[in-house]
Amino acid sequence: METIKNYIEENKERFLDELFGLIQIPSISSLSEHKPDMVRAAEYWKKSLLEAGADKAEVMPSDGNPVVYGEKMIDSTLPTVLVYGHYDVMPVDPIDLWKSSPFEPEIRDGKIYARGADDDKGQSFMHAKAFEYLVKNNSLTCNVKFMLEGEEEIGSPSLGKWCEEHKAMLKADIILVSDTGMIAQDIPSITTGLRGLAYMEVEVTGPDKDLHSGLFGGAVANPANVLSKMIAQLVDEDGHITIPGFYDDVMTISDEERAEMAKAPFDLEEYKKALDLKAVYGEKGYSTNERTGIRPSLDVNGMWSGYTGEGAKTVLPSKAYAKISMRLVPNQDHHKIADLFKAYFKKIAPEYVTVKVKDLHGGQGYVSPTTMTAYLAAEKAYTDTFNKKPVPVRSGGSIPIISTFEEVLDIKSILMGFGLESDAIHSPNENYPLFNFYKGIETIVHFYQHYGELMK
Amino acid sequence: METIKNYIEENKERFLDELFGLIQIPSISSLSEHKPDMVRAAEYWKKSLLEAGADKAEVMPSDGNPVVYGEKMIDSTLPTVLVYGHYDVMPVDPIDLWKSSPFEPEIRDGKIYARGADDDKGQSFMHAKAFEYLVKNNSLTCNVKFMLEGEEEIGSPSLGKWCEEHKAMLKADIILVSDTGMIAQDIPSITTGLRGLAYMEVEVTGPDKDLHSGLFGGAVANPANVLSKMIAQLVDEDGHITIPGFYDDVMTISDEERAEMAKAPFDLEEYKKALDLKAVYGEKGYSTNERTGIRPSLDVNGMWSGYTGEGAKTVLPSKAYAKISMRLVPNQDHHKIADLFKAYFKKIAPEYVTVKVKDLHGGQGYVSPTTMTAYLAAEKAYTDTFNKKPVPVRSGGSIPIISTFEEVLDIKSILMGFGLESDAIHSPNENYPLFNFYKGIETIVHFYQHYGELMK
Repeated sequence: METIKNYIEENKERFLDELFGLIQIPSISSLSEHKPDMVRAAEYWKKSLLEAGADKAEVMPSDGNPVVYGEKMIDSTLPTVLVYGHYDVMPVDPIDLWKSSPFEPEIRDGKIYARGADDDKGQSFMHAKAFEYLVKNNSLTCNVKFMLEGEEEIGSPSLGKWCEEHKAMLKADIILVSDTGMIAQDIPSITTGLRGLAYMEVEVTGPDKDLHSGLFGGAVANPANVLSKMIAQLVDEDGHITIPGFYDDVMTISDEERAEMAKAPFDLEEYKKALDLKAVYGEKGYSTNERTGIRPSLDVNGMWSGYTGEGAKTVLPSKAYAKISMRLVPNQDHHKIADLFKAYFKKIAPEYVTVKVKDLHGGQGYVSPTTMTAYLAAEKAYTDTFNKKPVPVRSGGSIPIISTFEEVLDIKSILMGFGLESDAIHSPNENYPLFNFYKGIETIVHFYQHYGELMK
Repeated sequence: METIKNYIEENKERFLDELFGLIQIPSISSLSEHKPDMVRAAEYWKKSLLEAGADKAEVMPSDGNPVVYGEKMIDSTLPTVLVYGHYDVMPVDPIDLWKSSPFEPEIRDGKIYARGADDDKGQSFMHAKAFEYLVKNNSLTCNVKFMLEGEEEIGSPSLGKWCEEHKAMLKADIILVSDTGMIAQDIPSITTGLRGLAYMEVEVTGPDKDLHSGLFGGAVANPANVLSKMIAQLVDEDGHITIPGFYDDVMTISDEERAEMAKAPFDLEEYKKALDLKAVYGEKGYSTNERTGIRPSLDVNGMWSGYTGEGAKTVLPSKAYAKISMRLVPNQDHHKIADLFKAYFKKIAPEYVTVKVKDLHGGQGYVSPTTMTAYLAAEKAYTDTFNKKPVPVRSGGSIPIISTFEEVLDIKSILMGFGLESDAIHSPNENYPLFNFYKGIETIVHFYQHYGELMK
């Protein structure tokens, strides 16, 4: 049997050509003029899956962009892995900051530069090639299903319902996803948790029109000052969120677990240097990694009021606005948190202003236990490829669809991401190192082998 | 001798025609395409002064728009009144909210509707017509000088230097200004104080680039949250500004003076209704009028940070900004206050952010004592016209050039303004009631007579 290492070596140019074909389709889901590109990208995936060895592959309609489904069922008594990925990408603005055209992939310094090079075309395409190898070598130990959506970058608005409608077809033991990162090329890691999100917009109204700050200043409450005071009250001096009940459902993590997580390599000085920070700030009693990994947070994502142009305008504004989001940890329900926020924000509003709170967006957190079979298989797979046991990492980010899979399909996900922080996803000059692309394929092949073995 | 009432009655149509000629020149000082209109408006004033009876009138260059100077010197032993006004106006945006064309004055419901109808073409032109009457009737009791500038609406950047250069020419006993308001048509009032201004812009920087709020939220200080906390600290629960030394130079007002001021008619319920406020808010221990009249204030005039577009973007912004201005009372020096603000704002900045503070703009406050001769003359003049003693009022607004006059020329100003709050100055549909225009002319004539009498 040919080894995966050799197979990659012999086929690596073709792998890149095929990936580049997918990248060249500008499938930006947030811009409606790219609707035809969404279909083209989906068709490209269908063809790729069939060529890689799928028994069947289809471009299926959803309420939004189509979903690509493919499968190879070898034996109904074997376990089934459902691979999830997305073929849509983020917009490319600001275009003038790109060193090469975002949809003309270019290799520089051993990295593929293009929109989608990592997120998620590069990462998801590794699965097609790992699958191809296993089929060609007749070494599949599981049934494999593929599901590729075209709306991840806009919050997967249609996929939950689509899953509901195709529950039987999607039946699987585990969902395998490469849409996250690893610590470094020599420090493999597995994402074991994602945070949830409750995203609110608030509006504070003082007088019913903008006033002259000279004639009224001091006598009429200024909504921008009031909003500042209200925001200031949401987090106390110790970095604790003050909303009553906010922490009620946060699971406490044992000292043992915290000690295990603390083994993940982390250099605070490097971290500060990378962000040009004089000091970090966060909840008292927790490390920087714990603050994003296992604790919720509250951030102003935007705020605006009054005159924001050049120079001085003496206005006492009528209104002040802020977008405020909370990252939640698993077990915190985003609907409940949104309600608690609303109630508290209205409660702390002084009588001389009117407050409106809108719930813009939300998603549940997710946790992937390190005790599940898929985790153990992944751990072995990374160890085979990198000669190092991977570190379990709780990510501060959110992929709301992952918790939806658990709710709707009752299937856990294993997050085997191979991206690096330097990949600049969502930014100009997105890139993906060839090293990570090929190592990812290798690791995925090992995963199937171990998973099949452990599930026996 | 013909009475001023009769003179107005006989000439009122001509007065309006002449004023309309001035209004029809769109002399917007902030828009450079109107440069030729500034010269046209200045020339119009020169002609008007000569026709009204000035011995000489000139359009004189300054570093910016020209200044019109005119005079009638009747006797060097008599007192001299220097009339100040401005021929420039504010822009007219949003133009679609105007019911009639802003530079085609129209009379509706007894009011002149046009940009500049009140501020300050209508109000300053009353002085030309009062002067004309006095000259024609040979009843001038003072020498009269006129100074009309074309940059008041952009902060009078050139007039201070121009006054410095023409000190001897401008020598006078009092400066007479109509560029403020009165309480109501049946409640005459005289503005006895103006607040000063210190206008700052602050920038708070956290990380050196916008970050993903999921991956970093909770571990890196958010400059928008920090700015909110800092703004919240600038004013305490009692409405006191917390900047150390801020109140050091604020003169205490005696209980007697406060009792006198409290006689000015004021209806809190009406005030709240007009601004659609559930409650007023301000410094503890002071009334609404005192809060704007005799006490300093601090207002956020604008603030902005992060994502302010539609929907949710999960950004942890790199920077947050605010424009913060303080209205000052007489005796508070705006340079000193700006320095105190800077020092305090930097002091309260936590170590995990970087703060920049810019001093954008400033002006000194002004007080016009009710004991000075010009005030007493004005008081008698209003009483003659309105059959009511005028109320002394401290305005919350600022006319920085008034304190500059005192500094540079060492001459006090008397602020005989006839505008109403409903005149919508600086807004669409600016207007000036004919009643106020004619009553203003009448009152100004009485002022000269009393002032000459009292100065004997």
